[in-house]
Amino acid sequence: MSPDQVEAEVRAIGARARAASKILALAKTESKRRALRAAAGAIRAREADLIAANEKDLEFGGNKGLSKAMMDRLLLTPDRIESMAAGLEAIAELSDPVGQVIAEWERPNGLRIQRVRTPLGVIGVIYESRPNVTADAGGLCLSAGNAVILRGGSESLNSSGLIAECLRQGLAEAGLPQDAIQMIPTRDREAVGALLRMSDFVDVIVPRGGRGLIERVMTDARMPVFAHLDGLCHVYVHSGADPEKARAIAINAKMRRTGICGAAETLLIDKAVAPTLLPTILTELSGAGCEIRGDDETRGLFPDALAATDEDWRTEYLDSIIAVRVVDGLEQAIEHINTMGSNHTDSIVTEDDTAADVFLREVDSAIVMHNASTQFADGGEFGMGAEIGISTGRMHARGPVGTEQLTSFRYVVRGDGQVRP
Amino acid sequence: MSPDQVEAEVRAIGARARAASKILALAKTESKRRALRAAAGAIRAREADLIAANEKDLEFGGNKGLSKAMMDRLLLTPDRIESMAAGLEAIAELSDPVGQVIAEWERPNGLRIQRVRTPLGVIGVIYESRPNVTADAGGLCLSAGNAVILRGGSESLNSSGLIAECLRQGLAEAGLPQDAIQMIPTRDREAVGALLRMSDFVDVIVPRGGRGLIERVMTDARMPVFAHLDGLCHVYVHSGADPEKARAIAINAKMRRTGICGAAETLLIDKAVAPTLLPTILTELSGAGCEIRGDDETRGLFPDALAATDEDWRTEYLDSIIAVRVVDGLEQAIEHINTMGSNHTDSIVTEDDTAADVFLREVDSAIVMHNASTQFADGGEFGMGAEIGISTGRMHARGPVGTEQLTSFRYVVRGDGQVRP
Repeated sequence: MSPDQVEAEVRAIGARARAASKILALAKTESKRRALRAAAGAIRAREADLIAANEKDLEFGGNKGLSKAMMDRLLLTPDRIESMAAGLEAIAELSDPVGQVIAEWERPNGLRIQRVRTPLGVIGVIYESRPNVTADAGGLCLSAGNAVILRGGSESLNSSGLIAECLRQGLAEAGLPQDAIQMIPTRDREAVGALLRMSDFVDVIVPRGGRGLIERVMTDARMPVFAHLDGLCHVYVHSGADPEKARAIAINAKMRRTGICGAAETLLIDKAVAPTLLPTILTELSGAGCEIRGDDETRGLFPDALAATDEDWRTEYLDSIIAVRVVDGLEQAIEHINTMGSNHTDSIVTEDDTAADVFLREVDSAIVMHNASTQFADGGEFGMGAEIGISTGRMHARGPVGTEQLTSFRYVVRGDGQVRP
Repeated sequence: MSPDQVEAEVRAIGARARAASKILALAKTESKRRALRAAAGAIRAREADLIAANEKDLEFGGNKGLSKAMMDRLLLTPDRIESMAAGLEAIAELSDPVGQVIAEWERPNGLRIQRVRTPLGVIGVIYESRPNVTADAGGLCLSAGNAVILRGGSESLNSSGLIAECLRQGLAEAGLPQDAIQMIPTRDREAVGALLRMSDFVDVIVPRGGRGLIERVMTDARMPVFAHLDGLCHVYVHSGADPEKARAIAINAKMRRTGICGAAETLLIDKAVAPTLLPTILTELSGAGCEIRGDDETRGLFPDALAATDEDWRTEYLDSIIAVRVVDGLEQAIEHINTMGSNHTDSIVTEDDTAADVFLREVDSAIVMHNASTQFADGGEFGMGAEIGISTGRMHARGPVGTEQLTSFRYVVRGDGQVRP
């Protein structure tokens, strides 16, 4: 297709999504739940078809020379298919944010004002190889009453397309417009540009994938983006830290899973306690297979550490590597985090509540923690049920983006004939 | 200055604003209040200087051939100067949104999570001839802990510049960074483009002025915009309306002040009650100097009405003109509003609560009303104390934008050593 044809096709999808969003915005909770459950049923019923479609994608990916990790992300197994279906059923259990009264008050003239949640409208989701994002993101947008336009990775087109078909079947079974969930049916890269320009039909874009994708979306999107570019999370061990909490949190924050955005990348520790605490912590990290890159003071206390460069303080490893710096105290730790960090998630370990309060107030991140592992930075762990991602932007959504964050609101004003003097 | 020099100067302002915003974000409520009160004092103390600066602007505006209405907007009088000072003192009395806990809950693992309001960061305000916007917008941004970059109309440069100086004096007296309030000191039009591109230093843009300005900002801004392009508000008289409420609301919504965004532009009325109610309402409107443009049925009932064209249903007159259409009922009224309206403020007049609920749910506007005049669409009338404008966007702020809407939030998580299993 020519770029003009791609643009026209993407815009046609956008126009249908906008029309469907107006119907979906008024859909009853029970209809949305029925659609989610029917989609789960369709996914289970079509397991064999999904595996067959996925085999085509795997062949395409293999020919393209995808890495082993990428091929694993692309793979659908019976377990993964069941997990997608179960995920949709779990979303169906979430409370419906649409129609919730967020605030309500009465004016002296008797007007009663309510701030009421409404859907956002149309959400664009751009993702890479994992086909299950189709179900997760599509289901979450649907449950908040939004239409969604999905653009999966080119290598997962067959699998994702079939999953989207299952979601659309669910919509149809519930009497909702199928165009509330659409997938861009072409591998053409120009389609992404067309989607990102379509601010009249798309209210917000959610990119899911690697840094290259996020960066491109943030640069090119003509509408708001819910995303984080980096998850450069810090654990700061304050001089007033409980040694056992410091050890447990540092190890867990770094090593529980190194590839998630809430994994710690830098450990800061007060010089007052570094000699007693740091060797133990770094020995355990090292023993667990973590590479240590430290400043001079760290290397004095733990000679096996490699020398950290300036680059290390700004690097999200997403791997078994940690940068370690000994700091003068609270102020320097906050300064380091606010300068080098990515405003994602940062944690202080201390028994000193005054120091904790300063940290929680002054560290400018979406999530600030006291005596807890940064790996809790997750919508599920926050009790939101599910998340479509974590945002480090300050507009609209910040932190985990769950169904509530996929809504807007409006004011409902009830009077009995008031006119303005 | 060359475009490059303008860009460099605007970016230097942006960098200083960003740095100041980090200090202001942590400022105590009392310091911000002191700054606002000191600014009010400075404005009163410099009344003569303000009048002199304003005379230069009036001369510039006169030479430029500004209309009488524009010249009036530009004018500062002792009363208007006092009203600016009093406005700043009123903002100082508002409760500080920063630090407010919006939500709070505990997880089964004992983690306590709070969603806490924080400032947004840096706000850019672009406005036209009214110099008092300098004080109103600057004060409101300051009270929510944000830095602000002001770009006034070229004809008000001297007046606005001196008002900004008074605000900066207030900041200095309160020990806060003066760069939290900066004005772009050049008439160069290129400066607006530079400001709208500066998404790294400006978090949100608020345009205040005519349609041309808003449209340009919405098109060119590389950051979110809080604004409304049109305020095409409707009053819908349902068949179940109380006749006296219908009359009073229609007259007030249209005629109380015709130049504000909450003024009604279109009157819809059910055909069941049009013969009995419409002649009275239109006679009164007409008697008050309002031009009536009606559809065929309206003209049948009120022969003095001019014929409305399709264009009339989409026009925000901001004047003593009203478009009138007789509709079949609730469904057609909602359809008309959602198709022709601007998602700003729309009101139904009825004693039938079931019909009202359908209207309040299905009309997709920032503010929906039942038995109240659309002229209440105002932050002050909503009890927000003051507003920087009204937004019809769905992201972050919708409806009146007061201090709360000029904030973001973050999550504060407190534990006692929790690690993620």
